[in-house]
Amino acid sequence: MFEYVLEGTAGSARAGTLSLPHGLVRTPAFMPVGTHAVVRGLSAGDVRCTGAQIILANTYHLHLRPGESIVQSMGGLHRFTTWTGPMLTDSGGFQVFSLEGLRRIEEHGVEFQSHIDGTLRMLTPERATEIQWQLGADIAMAFDHVVPGQSSFDAAREGMERTLRWLDRCKGKHAELAGSGGSGEPASPQTLWPIIQGGIHDELRRRSLEGTLERGPWTGIAIGGLSVGEAKPVMHRVIELLTPALPVDAPRYLMGVGFPPDLLEGIARGVDLFDCVAATRNGRHGTAWLPTGRLNVRGAALKDSTAPLDPSCDCETCTTYPRGYLRHLFVVEDILGLRLVSIHNIRFLVRLGEQARTHILNGTFDGWSREWLGRYYAGGD
Amino acid sequence: MFEYVLEGTAGSARAGTLSLPHGLVRTPAFMPVGTHAVVRGLSAGDVRCTGAQIILANTYHLHLRPGESIVQSMGGLHRFTTWTGPMLTDSGGFQVFSLEGLRRIEEHGVEFQSHIDGTLRMLTPERATEIQWQLGADIAMAFDHVVPGQSSFDAAREGMERTLRWLDRCKGKHAELAGSGGSGEPASPQTLWPIIQGGIHDELRRRSLEGTLERGPWTGIAIGGLSVGEAKPVMHRVIELLTPALPVDAPRYLMGVGFPPDLLEGIARGVDLFDCVAATRNGRHGTAWLPTGRLNVRGAALKDSTAPLDPSCDCETCTTYPRGYLRHLFVVEDILGLRLVSIHNIRFLVRLGEQARTHILNGTFDGWSREWLGRYYAGGD
Repeated sequence: MFEYVLEGTAGSARAGTLSLPHGLVRTPAFMPVGTHAVVRGLSAGDVRCTGAQIILANTYHLHLRPGESIVQSMGGLHRFTTWTGPMLTDSGGFQVFSLEGLRRIEEHGVEFQSHIDGTLRMLTPERATEIQWQLGADIAMAFDHVVPGQSSFDAAREGMERTLRWLDRCKGKHAELAGSGGSGEPASPQTLWPIIQGGIHDELRRRSLEGTLERGPWTGIAIGGLSVGEAKPVMHRVIELLTPALPVDAPRYLMGVGFPPDLLEGIARGVDLFDCVAATRNGRHGTAWLPTGRLNVRGAALKDSTAPLDPSCDCETCTTYPRGYLRHLFVVEDILGLRLVSIHNIRFLVRLGEQARTHILNGTFDGWSREWLGRYYAGGD
Repeated sequence: MFEYVLEGTAGSARAGTLSLPHGLVRTPAFMPVGTHAVVRGLSAGDVRCTGAQIILANTYHLHLRPGESIVQSMGGLHRFTTWTGPMLTDSGGFQVFSLEGLRRIEEHGVEFQSHIDGTLRMLTPERATEIQWQLGADIAMAFDHVVPGQSSFDAAREGMERTLRWLDRCKGKHAELAGSGGSGEPASPQTLWPIIQGGIHDELRRRSLEGTLERGPWTGIAIGGLSVGEAKPVMHRVIELLTPALPVDAPRYLMGVGFPPDLLEGIARGVDLFDCVAATRNGRHGTAWLPTGRLNVRGAALKDSTAPLDPSCDCETCTTYPRGYLRHLFVVEDILGLRLVSIHNIRFLVRLGEQARTHILNGTFDGWSREWLGRYYAGGD
């Protein structure tokens, strides 16, 4: 369980298989985000049809509604959502640190005000770990101190060092919950992944990496604090700095990334897993991803088109509905439109992972990826 | 084509099969309403899974958006929506007469202001028939003059008589479009059904019925102008007045009805087809129909329930999701909730038709229906 087997490489790009209690994840892979234990507007069946292998849920949001006790009493996230495949929960760190003005950071944890009812709440490394245990996803994330993308060295250092100290506490709490206090190997249904922080400062990223590895071994390692306002070349530099030093037999998860080109750029630099709300957010706003860039589904040019949204796509939306009907759904504001474009966008990223995997295993990743990015950017995106 | 075969009766209740260009409809049957050529929030696949055999679309709304020319240029409603089964379009009569203050009625037709962009438009019997021909449903409805449920004798007479005069014009236009100007039988892909009006006045209903039958034969006949504000016993009386005099070999369609008990009351009085937006409207508001009456899916009592919404139901929602999750979806306002409860409510009415059919054919309709209504009303609805 929680084993990652590397199956092939192409330069830094990797293809492998991660074994989790609820199934296998072939990497590289995009994970759709189900903030409230639902991928916005989609049923578990819809998500399955996109080929997604693993979905993410947000601890912060589920702690507020419906509360981890309810999810636990109903049998955990899998029973609650009816999603039977692998799941991952974030730790709530990113969310509470985003609550600018509504939260107070101490060494003990973060006190914050619920954005729902204004109640004061506290998240600590121990609580975040315990909540995730109750939610019951396959993978839990360590509670981290995230800083904005342009943070100074000192601010980023504070967050990075605290993240390491909190990692010890998360690890201790997780071991306690998993009953691995004794000598034996824990037969836990859940694993814990650490998060590397350090902002855009190479020196801090290196120290975070070292500190994280010292506290291992880990079944997977996340890179956090990217795609939070820094320039793309900076993000790429940080990834390139880290991946060569990461263990080969643990998947690397680049948190909160990304858009289609970000996936390919990340994969090329050795990242295995991605998550991002952009697929569903764009879908809700009527923006579809195509191999030639973005398309506004509301556009008048689509009004009598019988062509599929993306003729090269095999998703339910593209194999079923004409463009003119999809546009009509957005014009009359029927929620089916949001769903159908979200399904396409998720499939688009899932398929990008599948295609990358095939090309990595065939040794053709580099040329394919270059060509793909060229066509996408030529479309104006 | 357009043949209705009566297969069994139980008192006035009937079970039969209607043959249409896009398939068969076993009656009695509920038709979900797809106002904008989409059953609110549901994909064609979702609707198929409810067991619905035929869906309805609104001429008024489709005339405004996307316009009948676009639907026609894309291959008609079936290609446009990807719904491959039978379809029916209303004539727009009900909608334009509902535009109180925004429409002017003349013998020629109704001038109205679009509720979308305020433009002045005209619907006449000929235009309504032509638009429906372009939309291309299996069944088109005659353009009628609908009056409110409490209309005086004189007002109801005016609407009823105009509806008959307009019926001649609809029939003429439809015959022209179907190319039946010559001697041969038209090989039309669409049939036209008349609508009986006359408000709550028996005398007028009788005259409407006679006038309608004189203009036949028809492949189906609708009863309009009910469920528009009159008391239920009045609606029942009008149905009872009409159905004994209607031809046995044509389906009777009670327009805009109804709620679950209305279906059973209508079926008992010889109605074969029903349509109503209540199933999806209630679904969107989180009200589910159960055999014991209505249930508010938002209710706190559901919050940790692992039970299905309706344990006796075989729909996707009830066989997949726990109540606690459905409630959660409404609490976090995810559109998946609206969809799942709409699916259940449609299945609930479709299944009621299926069950009624079985009991009619088995000769057990009367007892079953009485028991069903008793249980439903005992639930407080």
